[in-house]
Amino acid sequence: MTGRGFLPEGWGVQGEGGIAFVVTGPSGAGKSSVIGELLRRDGRLSFSVSATTRPRRPGEVHGRDYYFLSEEEFDGLIQRGELLEWTEYQGHRYGTPRSQVVDVLAQGRDVLLNVEVRGALAIARAGLPYPVVLVFMIPPTWEELAARIRARGTESEKALDARLAIAREEVRHIPEFHYLVVNDRLEEAVRQLEAIVIAERRRITRC
Amino acid sequence: MTGRGFLPEGWGVQGEGGIAFVVTGPSGAGKSSVIGELLRRDGRLSFSVSATTRPRRPGEVHGRDYYFLSEEEFDGLIQRGELLEWTEYQGHRYGTPRSQVVDVLAQGRDVLLNVEVRGALAIARAGLPYPVVLVFMIPPTWEELAARIRARGTESEKALDARLAIAREEVRHIPEFHYLVVNDRLEEAVRQLEAIVIAERRRITRC
Repeated sequence: MTGRGFLPEGWGVQGEGGIAFVVTGPSGAGKSSVIGELLRRDGRLSFSVSATTRPRRPGEVHGRDYYFLSEEEFDGLIQRGELLEWTEYQGHRYGTPRSQVVDVLAQGRDVLLNVEVRGALAIARAGLPYPVVLVFMIPPTWEELAARIRARGTESEKALDARLAIAREEVRHIPEFHYLVVNDRLEEAVRQLEAIVIAERRRITRC
Repeated sequence: MTGRGFLPEGWGVQGEGGIAFVVTGPSGAGKSSVIGELLRRDGRLSFSVSATTRPRRPGEVHGRDYYFLSEEEFDGLIQRGELLEWTEYQGHRYGTPRSQVVDVLAQGRDVLLNVEVRGALAIARAGLPYPVVLVFMIPPTWEELAARIRARGTESEKALDARLAIAREEVRHIPEFHYLVVNDRLEEAVRQLEAIVIAERRRITRC
């Protein structure tokens, strides 16, 4: 029951299309873990798989976590206009395949995206004819962020310093986002992100 | 952990004060049941008890559900400026004691209010220096609304018709609210309202 028959004619809580939930935050904030758990709980959310030229990390699966592409393949996506946005981050390129987002939203399904900060802001400015909800995720402290990047074991100390410097720049953009999720404990962060999704589906007026 | 040390200086997700969650909807939407259940779950929410001159219904408790006042006592509240807003509804007066809202918000606690539609809009326009979140609750269908009012057993058929006519006028104001909760099953409506509360606590930018 949606209560639609109850409402004044000509408008609804949500239009025909879905909502795009864009989750971003510094590398090491734990976005993938939180998103993965939410996707298991909410069958109405469709994950937008990004394309990247960065190397695959242990446990990552092509087509599920990312489309891992060569530089030439990534060039092809750009040239054919198949990316909604793309950005470079630490020497690798990351992009959002347009079809992963637009086609799914047009079918009335909600889309969840995991993108880096500049990518999130680019999607917000892309002028999609669907609501775009911007969520910024941070760890509880800088020490915890450094510890999480170290625990990943894929970074040299020099690369770690570079990531932290990038993170300091990224958090300056927090005021441009709608929501802030602090990922201290996974369960609590999932609960907060889930609440944002449920609440936004009930939203009448939007910023 | 709030993540505050992580954020740019000079601003936070939420200011020093609390958030006012104003829940409204036609009589019979089930607001009291949903709110009662949410208050049991969320210890950070403080319920603002309204004052009214309407007769007490079976099961209602003075000071918990309402302050049941005489016409003279209600006049006194108005004259002493102790009401944030007051309205008349079907021959009885309903008002929001200012202290129940402003003092609690100033202490940094969130406040939940159950008021009728014009009262909700009056609170939104009262210029409180705290965020005011407006939630409109409806039953799934008009038939269900009529059935719920009948089941209450306190209304003649004539009074029922009057309530439905008022409800038809009230739902025209839905576009002025932030969120719409459809109270089909109690558990689902509580979950939606709870999600709105959790999400709004994480909100960075507001309408």
